[in-house]
Amino acid sequence: MNPVTIERIRKFTEDRDWDQFHSPANLAKSIVIEAGELLECFQWSENEFEIENVKEELADVIVYCRNLLDKLGLDEDENVNEKMEKNEKKYPVDKAKGKNTKYDKL
Amino acid sequence: MNPVTIERIRKFTEDRDWDQFHSPANLAKSIVIEAGELLECFQWSENEFEIENVKEELADVIVYCRNLLDKLGLDEDENVNEKMEKNEKKYPVDKAKGKNTKYDKL
Amino acid sequence: MNPVTIERIRKFTEDRDWDQFHSPANLAKSIVIEAGELLECFQWSENEFEIENVKEELADVIVYCRNLLDKLGLDEDENVNEKMEKNEKKYPVDKAKGKNTKYDKL
Amino acid sequence: MNPVTIERIRKFTEDRDWDQFHSPANLAKSIVIEAGELLECFQWSENEFEIENVKEELADVIVYCRNLLDKLGLDEDENVNEKMEKNEKKYPVDKAKGKNTKYDKL
Repeated sequence: MNPVTIERIRKFTEDRDWDQFHSPANLAKSIVIEAGELLECFQWSENEFEIENVKEELADVIVYCRNLLDKLGLDEDENVNEKMEKNEKKYPVDKAKGKNTKYDKL
Repeated sequence: MNPVTIERIRKFTEDRDWDQFHSPANLAKSIVIEAGELLECFQWSENEFEIENVKEELADVIVYCRNLLDKLGLDEDENVNEKMEKNEKKYPVDKAKGKNTKYDKL
Repeated sequence: MNPVTIERIRKFTEDRDWDQFHSPANLAKSIVIEAGELLECFQWSENEFEIENVKEELADVIVYCRNLLDKLGLDEDENVNEKMEKNEKKYPVDKAKGKNTKYDKL
Repeated sequence: MNPVTIERIRKFTEDRDWDQFHSPANLAKSIVIEAGELLECFQWSENEFEIENVKEELADVIVYCRNLLDKLGLDEDENVNEKMEKNEKKYPVDKAKGKNTKYDKL
């Protein structure tokens, strides 16, 4: 995410004095709530969905994730790369290729 | 997110031939599932949490969001800025400052 | 749910002195967390699932719902009938039959 | 749940010809979606909440759980008692009393 967008997200919270509500727990709840709204786009159908709604709800999830990264002082790239390293070990290509099996059943 | 990290996420999916499982609906389900695991870090307490678990689960949500942006051919900054524009209108500073009231009750 | 089963659920919490963790908020979080685990049974496929896992996770959701009814002093039948009344009005048969459209778009 | 309430729930679905939408996967998604709306009552506060909203959203979760029990031909008491048996073993009173530790860390 471009620094200008990141700054827009931060300013939005600051201008409204909303940091007081942004405990890690409240942000985790918010991420789930928005993820549920995203899922609602697919509630009755897997194949048909309103792209505009999906875009909005996905943006909501992403923004709260950004809020949580900031609240915890995390660098997004560092955080994601750390997890990708674990994922690559949990799902070696030769074992996992073409299968959606969970790692503990591989 | 840095292009090197984005590429790492894409390569992870490609190497394992997992794109076949990445329908928008499956990705929406995955985002909710990981968001639930993130919330689990705060299940019984708002104030105490294991930072390492929170970091892992947050990374999982972020990675699936990236997968979904890619699947839908969306640019993250464009997508987020579009929504921030709507948020700024829904929550004018003079009405929303210091309050966590939902926009339809402002 | 049979009174013997309800009593078993209550005794489980009492024996372990777990009521202290059963704030309405913690129970709401728990319901979401278990619902996410239920959804995980369908993460990559809509049609194939492990029935034993689905049964377990569904039971977990149901048990936490029972905990929350108890915590709030609600009668399940009263609570459900109140909502069914609203649902029947929101989704009149002549308008809603055969369609999965949300009520505000009917 | 009283047989009259159960029958009301079934009739609601039948009258609207909605069984076609009630695949186990769609019902699992619905349970999560409503659980997210229940959680929204506690999004910014653990202690203050609108009881009427909580009651409505809890009822929604319970109704979809009932739909899923029916779809899978499960008896609620049997299903819950099976899981309570496992819970009682996973969380022996002498180890679990007064603690909210997950079973794999007991």
